[in-house]
Amino acid sequence: MMNSPICSMLDIEFPLLAFSHCRDVVAAVSKAGGMGVFGAVNLSPERLREELDWIDAHADGKPYGVDLIVPNKFAGKGEKLDTGRLIDSIPQEHKDFASGILAEHDIATDELDRTRGISGNFARNLRAEGAASSLEVAFEYPIKLIANALGVPPQVMLDLGKQHGVPVAALVGAKEHAVAQVNAGVDILVVAGGEAGGHCGDVSTMVLIPEVARALKEVGADTPILAAGGITTGEQMAAAIAMGAAGAWCGSVWLTTAEAETNPVVKEKMLAASSRDTVRSRSRTGKPSRQLRSPWTDAWEGEDAPEPLPMPLQSMVSEPALRQIDKLSQSGHQGAKDLATYWVGQGVGLMNQPLSSGQVVQQFKEEFAEAFERLSASLGD
Amino acid sequence: MMNSPICSMLDIEFPLLAFSHCRDVVAAVSKAGGMGVFGAVNLSPERLREELDWIDAHADGKPYGVDLIVPNKFAGKGEKLDTGRLIDSIPQEHKDFASGILAEHDIATDELDRTRGISGNFARNLRAEGAASSLEVAFEYPIKLIANALGVPPQVMLDLGKQHGVPVAALVGAKEHAVAQVNAGVDILVVAGGEAGGHCGDVSTMVLIPEVARALKEVGADTPILAAGGITTGEQMAAAIAMGAAGAWCGSVWLTTAEAETNPVVKEKMLAASSRDTVRSRSRTGKPSRQLRSPWTDAWEGEDAPEPLPMPLQSMVSEPALRQIDKLSQSGHQGAKDLATYWVGQGVGLMNQPLSSGQVVQQFKEEFAEAFERLSASLGD
Repeated sequence: MMNSPICSMLDIEFPLLAFSHCRDVVAAVSKAGGMGVFGAVNLSPERLREELDWIDAHADGKPYGVDLIVPNKFAGKGEKLDTGRLIDSIPQEHKDFASGILAEHDIATDELDRTRGISGNFARNLRAEGAASSLEVAFEYPIKLIANALGVPPQVMLDLGKQHGVPVAALVGAKEHAVAQVNAGVDILVVAGGEAGGHCGDVSTMVLIPEVARALKEVGADTPILAAGGITTGEQMAAAIAMGAAGAWCGSVWLTTAEAETNPVVKEKMLAASSRDTVRSRSRTGKPSRQLRSPWTDAWEGEDAPEPLPMPLQSMVSEPALRQIDKLSQSGHQGAKDLATYWVGQGVGLMNQPLSSGQVVQQFKEEFAEAFERLSASLGD
Repeated sequence: MMNSPICSMLDIEFPLLAFSHCRDVVAAVSKAGGMGVFGAVNLSPERLREELDWIDAHADGKPYGVDLIVPNKFAGKGEKLDTGRLIDSIPQEHKDFASGILAEHDIATDELDRTRGISGNFARNLRAEGAASSLEVAFEYPIKLIANALGVPPQVMLDLGKQHGVPVAALVGAKEHAVAQVNAGVDILVVAGGEAGGHCGDVSTMVLIPEVARALKEVGADTPILAAGGITTGEQMAAAIAMGAAGAWCGSVWLTTAEAETNPVVKEKMLAASSRDTVRSRSRTGKPSRQLRSPWTDAWEGEDAPEPLPMPLQSMVSEPALRQIDKLSQSGHQGAKDLATYWVGQGVGLMNQPLSSGQVVQQFKEEFAEAFERLSASLGD
């Protein structure tokens, strides 16, 4: 076991956390000495139970965690989401623009089902009562970590964590938010730089980690930091620990593993991509999120593209189109293959080999050791 | 002396390089065990000689270097710059927009001298013959490093370096450029992430350093890497070395030192700024460069702002205004104080104390040692 507060808090050997929507990745990373954290935001309580049953049966008794999202602000919060009314409020310009991109790539747009732009479960989980029922399910299992990926966790999450002796983690992208989270009672901070895949701020990991570490020191907090954003290798994890993190939280690196359910077309693109092949754009959800570049994202970055809509409206424009692209790309449709994209961080430039999740953990350990040797050797005599 | 190829190549104790337009910073860093590199792009050969005379007399025999810029593409390259014709080609919209920002901040615009948008020396140095005369001056001195900050160094620079036994360094912001530079014969790569102040790409330091290190390994090159972009502390330098760099190249951190000739108003702003107070924008030079945010940069990022012009036209819009802002801000003009800005990286969030350049070097050494201890301790037993 490494000497890290993360290892002792979570009872793991190597302080590498794997955020994944794929239960196979979660179990494999936990078994390899890290910890899998299951991303459950799109699931009903029933489906979550199924997935956690499976993970619990396949993790060989190793610790695992669950990640939920409860944002503080979005259109329609607090009231039952009226999908029909939301669809009506999408400007025709946006629908036409999305359809136009598809049409240019020989994809028929008459089958797009906009009601599925945001899933009912997603909408449900974004409301406090929905999140609470998912939380209840999560705590039926012997989870060792519960994480909230957006904003300060709701009090019910903090309370349940305390009651069950389960650390509560929260994701932050700015120094100011980190201090607010610590004051709210969060046990672990996932500090994510702007190179991260998915929703992200714009301060880089290299700056944000020491900035947050120093800010916590100033307020006398010893909350451990998991570094996130662009980290897909062991030498980056070592670098983060040298700068004051207690471990790493990675999402992108698992997307190209054997276990991942990533669209194979996108997997191939990711393995071939350099770090310059991502874009931080509001075109997918309405908030800035980093994605693999494709003609789809390029079109939305173009000068004639309409301004992305606020959450959740932009998802209702983009998701039906991207779901169609995903489906067609896997049946060999060339236009769809070209357009296919998914969230990924700049670390995609370092993901060049198809590996199993266990092999990724092993490689992290080796690269970590090499990085330490390199730094140690630099000190000379 | 640390065990780094940079230390042995440059005959320095600590592989920390200081890029600065201020001769006092250059001499102070060299004396403190790092190496000062004098940024000479705006100087005539005569002025460069004066500055290097001073540095040579004040560096106590310690090694120092010179940095020049010879870009490969910009408007008017290869022909004598016709400033009058260039001024005529600036759209009225851009002049009006810049004047409008000043007017909103109670700054009269009738005294702006657009002919000084780019200095004659800058223009001269951007042409091959101009760069050659600056190079000749540089090599009259016992410099230990010559650097080119944009693109592959011209052959004359590579030849003079070889002839004088002086390593030639070049700045890169992408893996592909790094390999091209090595193939061209560059001795040291300054690999700069998108968090850097001034002109920068958009791949973060945390991703770019290991990506370039791996790319060089693949082509069998052992060219040492100086990590740049956001690095203003010793733990970040240690992190970069853990990831495969041989040292660090820093610019921003010297701007708030006692020796720096930075506008005191801007110095104060930088000491108070967080990492989120910078913006990567084309509004100053026409190419993306990272600057301290102010109402000036905010205005150019606004929806009603005109698209920035190509180099060097945008500088002819921005520089006369910014020069006026600088001047008035130092005499206490409130509008000018508000607008004042300068290039700086995201690492500004870690620059919170006014220190001397020598103290900065000393602090880097201490933080570096602490970072090593932290990483070492994480390995446990």
